[in-house]
Amino acid sequence: KHGVSDEDAQVGAVTGLAWTEVGGELLTIESVTTPGKGEIRSTGKLGDVMSESIAAAFSFVKARAPAYGIKPSIFQRKNIHIHLPEGAVPKDGPSAGVGMVTSIVSTLTGIAVRPDVAMTGEVTLRGRVLPIGGLKEKLLAALRGGIKTVLIPEDNVKDLAEIPGNVTDGLEIIPVSHVDQVLETALTSMPAAIEWTEADDLASQPGAAGAKDGSAPTAH
Amino acid sequence: KHGVSDEDAQVGAVTGLAWTEVGGELLTIESVTTPGKGEIRSTGKLGDVMSESIAAAFSFVKARAPAYGIKPSIFQRKNIHIHLPEGAVPKDGPSAGVGMVTSIVSTLTGIAVRPDVAMTGEVTLRGRVLPIGGLKEKLLAALRGGIKTVLIPEDNVKDLAEIPGNVTDGLEIIPVSHVDQVLETALTSMPAAIEWTEADDLASQPGAAGAKDGSAPTAH
Amino acid sequence: KHGVSDEDAQVGAVTGLAWTEVGGELLTIESVTTPGKGEIRSTGKLGDVMSESIAAAFSFVKARAPAYGIKPSIFQRKNIHIHLPEGAVPKDGPSAGVGMVTSIVSTLTGIAVRPDVAMTGEVTLRGRVLPIGGLKEKLLAALRGGIKTVLIPEDNVKDLAEIPGNVTDGLEIIPVSHVDQVLETALTSMPAAIEWTEADDLASQPGAAGAKDGSAPTAH
Amino acid sequence: KHGVSDEDAQVGAVTGLAWTEVGGELLTIESVTTPGKGEIRSTGKLGDVMSESIAAAFSFVKARAPAYGIKPSIFQRKNIHIHLPEGAVPKDGPSAGVGMVTSIVSTLTGIAVRPDVAMTGEVTLRGRVLPIGGLKEKLLAALRGGIKTVLIPEDNVKDLAEIPGNVTDGLEIIPVSHVDQVLETALTSMPAAIEWTEADDLASQPGAAGAKDGSAPTAH
Amino acid sequence: KHGVSDEDAQVGAVTGLAWTEVGGELLTIESVTTPGKGEIRSTGKLGDVMSESIAAAFSFVKARAPAYGIKPSIFQRKNIHIHLPEGAVPKDGPSAGVGMVTSIVSTLTGIAVRPDVAMTGEVTLRGRVLPIGGLKEKLLAALRGGIKTVLIPEDNVKDLAEIPGNVTDGLEIIPVSHVDQVLETALTSMPAAIEWTEADDLASQPGAAGAKDGSAPTAH
Amino acid sequence: KHGVSDEDAQVGAVTGLAWTEVGGELLTIESVTTPGKGEIRSTGKLGDVMSESIAAAFSFVKARAPAYGIKPSIFQRKNIHIHLPEGAVPKDGPSAGVGMVTSIVSTLTGIAVRPDVAMTGEVTLRGRVLPIGGLKEKLLAALRGGIKTVLIPEDNVKDLAEIPGNVTDGLEIIPVSHVDQVLETALTSMPAAIEWTEADDLASQPGAAGAKDGSAPTAH
Ligand SMILES: [Ca+2]
Ligand SMILES: [Ca+2]
Ligand SMILES: [Ca+2]
Ligand SMILES: [Ca+2]
Ligand SMILES: [Ca+2]
Ligand SMILES: [Ca+2]
Ligand SMILES: [Ca+2]
Ligand SMILES: [Ca+2]
Ligand SMILES: [Ca+2]
Ligand SMILES: [Ca+2]
Ligand SMILES: [Ca+2]
Ligand SMILES: [Ca+2]
Repeated sequence: KHGVSDEDAQVGAVTGLAWTEVGGELLTIESVTTPGKGEIRSTGKLGDVMSESIAAAFSFVKARAPAYGIKPSIFQRKNIHIHLPEGAVPKDGPSAGVGMVTSIVSTLTGIAVRPDVAMTGEVTLRGRVLPIGGLKEKLLAALRGGIKTVLIPEDNVKDLAEIPGNVTDGLEIIPVSHVDQVLETALTSMPAAIEWTEADDLASQPGAAGAKDGSAPTAH
Repeated sequence: KHGVSDEDAQVGAVTGLAWTEVGGELLTIESVTTPGKGEIRSTGKLGDVMSESIAAAFSFVKARAPAYGIKPSIFQRKNIHIHLPEGAVPKDGPSAGVGMVTSIVSTLTGIAVRPDVAMTGEVTLRGRVLPIGGLKEKLLAALRGGIKTVLIPEDNVKDLAEIPGNVTDGLEIIPVSHVDQVLETALTSMPAAIEWTEADDLASQPGAAGAKDGSAPTAH
Repeated sequence: KHGVSDEDAQVGAVTGLAWTEVGGELLTIESVTTPGKGEIRSTGKLGDVMSESIAAAFSFVKARAPAYGIKPSIFQRKNIHIHLPEGAVPKDGPSAGVGMVTSIVSTLTGIAVRPDVAMTGEVTLRGRVLPIGGLKEKLLAALRGGIKTVLIPEDNVKDLAEIPGNVTDGLEIIPVSHVDQVLETALTSMPAAIEWTEADDLASQPGAAGAKDGSAPTAH
Repeated sequence: KHGVSDEDAQVGAVTGLAWTEVGGELLTIESVTTPGKGEIRSTGKLGDVMSESIAAAFSFVKARAPAYGIKPSIFQRKNIHIHLPEGAVPKDGPSAGVGMVTSIVSTLTGIAVRPDVAMTGEVTLRGRVLPIGGLKEKLLAALRGGIKTVLIPEDNVKDLAEIPGNVTDGLEIIPVSHVDQVLETALTSMPAAIEWTEADDLASQPGAAGAKDGSAPTAH
Repeated sequence: KHGVSDEDAQVGAVTGLAWTEVGGELLTIESVTTPGKGEIRSTGKLGDVMSESIAAAFSFVKARAPAYGIKPSIFQRKNIHIHLPEGAVPKDGPSAGVGMVTSIVSTLTGIAVRPDVAMTGEVTLRGRVLPIGGLKEKLLAALRGGIKTVLIPEDNVKDLAEIPGNVTDGLEIIPVSHVDQVLETALTSMPAAIEWTEADDLASQPGAAGAKDGSAPTAH
Repeated sequence: KHGVSDEDAQVGAVTGLAWTEVGGELLTIESVTTPGKGEIRSTGKLGDVMSESIAAAFSFVKARAPAYGIKPSIFQRKNIHIHLPEGAVPKDGPSAGVGMVTSIVSTLTGIAVRPDVAMTGEVTLRGRVLPIGGLKEKLLAALRGGIKTVLIPEDNVKDLAEIPGNVTDGLEIIPVSHVDQVLETALTSMPAAIEWTEADDLASQPGAAGAKDGSAPTAH
């Protein structure tokens, strides 16, 4: 059953695409919140490049939190743990970046991820999606795994010419250049942005007098 | 007497199953709480993969704590220490994951673990149980060690065909796909879920005015 | 599209110039703020020298914050994360220092960076700009990437004699000896200095009675 | 005089037994409390396995503190430092575990350790005593060093058959299966258990209103 | 222009003297304060010995702060960052110790350093100046770099006999045995000592009722 | 002048004795207090064994502080920095332990160390002095360096037989078995013990209501 995507929409669970010497394969990404102070923990025998891509994904989400309906005050009482199962298998590379962002946003908003969507793409601190390698192998793995929709970087569209027709025919392939396009397709609904001013930020600091939604719940 | 399971139900003590070049063997997992801030410490000459599987198991329990009757506020005053005895023997691999979750839940709820049950299976952040290697050797070790019931990953059922009949006859083998099934069999009773709202969470923060069961005990 | 500079002015995004064995290339530098306590995090497979140059750039900006209109109290509630995309490509060297300062000042002031400007130069704790290597390769990369203006260290002017005329004709090359000259050219507007006395500093400490713009917002 | 046990009962000083290629020898274990937050520091050129056995011994004592008359609130203002003298000699292995527990309990209760007792045995988080290697060499070292009583793991009783009669005749050898049996023999008196409820635990948290014996001394 | 000393007196900028296989050279030392808790950060590809010499220099200044007119309470709200430019060039050795002390005192007092002075000498925790190697190469570099005055350890005076006359004639060479002599020559003015009693120290602790110049500014 | 002991009694400065392949030599040990939380920092290219011996020396002093007239509350506002000059020369071994204790006690009490005394000996957590190697070389170095009195471990008295008469005649050699004997000889006066009860300890905790000499100065 592994190598096949989950059937139900789940919060925090994303299907990435990995590329190894022996071909492509589905890469499950899972995250949960735990009590903490806005830190991230990642496990699953991850290499340095993947660990850094998770750190960048997390900072991207923190910096844009209000745009995704996430109150920044949550980072004063929650950590995120990202785990990639099959814990004995080494994993590395930056191309799971869009999956990391999607998993974190899903977990923090409580909005589920569509289970028939897979995705690949490096992501920058401004949310741009950068091209990846191994497109053919990744698409084949998606097809084999029952995926219906694959999000790929716009800069990889030029590589689609070399992909066999039966692969591209069996998948809806959506090119994206910004992670917001990823979220629009992969989440079952789009979170509504909230306002968060510098005053909200100051008020939510630990020890501040009146917090909108900080650690000291006050009627107002 | 080692290599043979304990006879009494004990809080926090779980029998896992390890697989080495020279065969399978019983793997004792023990945990206790100590004063702290919700951190986990693991000892017993554990490799990186096993250490990461413990981190993931702990985050799984933290994220689902109310479902297991555990008030998340406990992570503001308790750490968990997991130790695997025979401290000079190296141990590694992800397959003790279900045992780690069971030991942590037992310690935090005070509900004992059945001593005649052994278990093997990797666990994900959502509690799914993934397949493991060395099933035959592990079942032989369980039989030798006086175990009555062995919990194995559902995805390993296909491997039972290759196991000698005298082994499978001597053991109750229960396939599981989620760690909740593990807890139902291995714990002497199932913890009752509690409610824990975001308001409870805010109120339990250090410094908050009125805590349900946090660090500032208040009559209410 | 990579290897070509962005078209719109963006906050925190700077184009540096790298020099490798196979030639020069554009080096994107991005930064965001996240909740924190004035620390810096850098990612993108950076070597020790580049990581240290980021630390020095950050300390330079912290020490001169009021001169750039930045209230030092922001370092009590914000971290900076700097990421250099193409996370699998190793990057090192001190010559991105001026870019690091520019990115940090842009992010902390909210003033955008001109997208058609590239820059190279080591920066010291007092803001002096020190010479770099690989000028020819870097200028060629800038030209190829559609850059219009390149800021180079004054101490590299002597190397311009060896650069082909078609390269120097295609670029506006501005020699700089202090990072303030870099900011004047690269930012879309220059931040206005603020006053910040020792009294402001004391008042902004956590727990102080009346803060100008610290963690305890008070009317005054 | 080294290699010979101390003559007076001392708080925190325990005689363990080490086993090296050139034979057994007495191993002094010493501990003191220092101001701190319940952490442990160990020195004396200790290997990873011995360091982990100290961590496990400390967690065992923390988790069972009230049973040994130790108020858990002490871990909010005291650290433990364990040192094994002859600081240039490497030491490793799990078999000093019972000695570590005994030293920590002695230091925290102020009850002295009998100087004519030596001990060897791995200890688990539940206090079980596991078998060790090198029994013969260790007993010879104890005899040479003027030890009268040696505590050994019950699971090593079977190895006594191979020990020369003059060794076993010269020593009182006491097999133990739980560390409580060790404490009963080695301490000059047994500490009386205290009660410590969850309410005591909450009240002793830093910042709590009324502490039994916490950081805020209150009459009651 | 590098290898030549700055022309204006600058706060925190000191010219040291380095000695490498290919001769001596000027070594710029710069420091700034940043918000913090009295910690030191050093960058510039420094080896362990130089990093330790910076740590010792900083502790020397902290321990003698009132003698240099520096209120110790500043270490509750400021860090020091020391950077040695030319960040890709490895630097090591203890002989920049007097320069480190001078840079830190200059930065903390705001008193500028004379730009035409260079210095070399290891410094101890009590401020004694210890001899260094490579005196000839260092003096030659100072002469080449336009330095007028060089401070050398008194214990190196015996080595001056071997230095060519044109070098010693071109430089004012001042032997020093304590870092106070260094500061008297190198700073543009000498800081006035302040009084700082144990009572001041207690009052300046975070959370203390009335602070002379601590984090809680109070009229008195 | 190096290799010769200081002439004046100094607080915190101790002369140890080192033993290398090329003979013995004087080893200066210096310490100062800096603002902090009771931590120790050691520099001077020290090996692991010497670093651990410093940690043990510091814990010994902390645990016995009142016996040396030191209020334990000082560890809530002061760190100790120990530095061994000649920062480029590697140093290791446990035999400077008695010197480390003497330096720390001198610095914390403000009582000077006699400059004509040198010392060697490992020290345990209970203050026992253990034997060292290289006695002959160390005594020769002491004689050469103008030392009058040398403290050696009692367990090294047996080695004095092999030392040439002119060496033992030129030095007052005092055997010691406990570090208290070291302090009695090496300090210019002996600190008077103070009383420090558990109540004092509780009252001196940060946040406690009335502190004897803690962070909150109160009249009483
Ligand atoms: Ca797989
Ligand atoms: Ca990848
Ligand atoms: Ca075994
Ligand atoms: Ca395994
Ligand atoms: Ca590129
Ligand atoms: Ca570079
Ligand atoms: Ca020995
Ligand atoms: Ca051992
Ligand atoms: Ca140079
Ligand atoms: Ca040097
Ligand atoms: Ca020397
Ligand atoms: Ca030594």
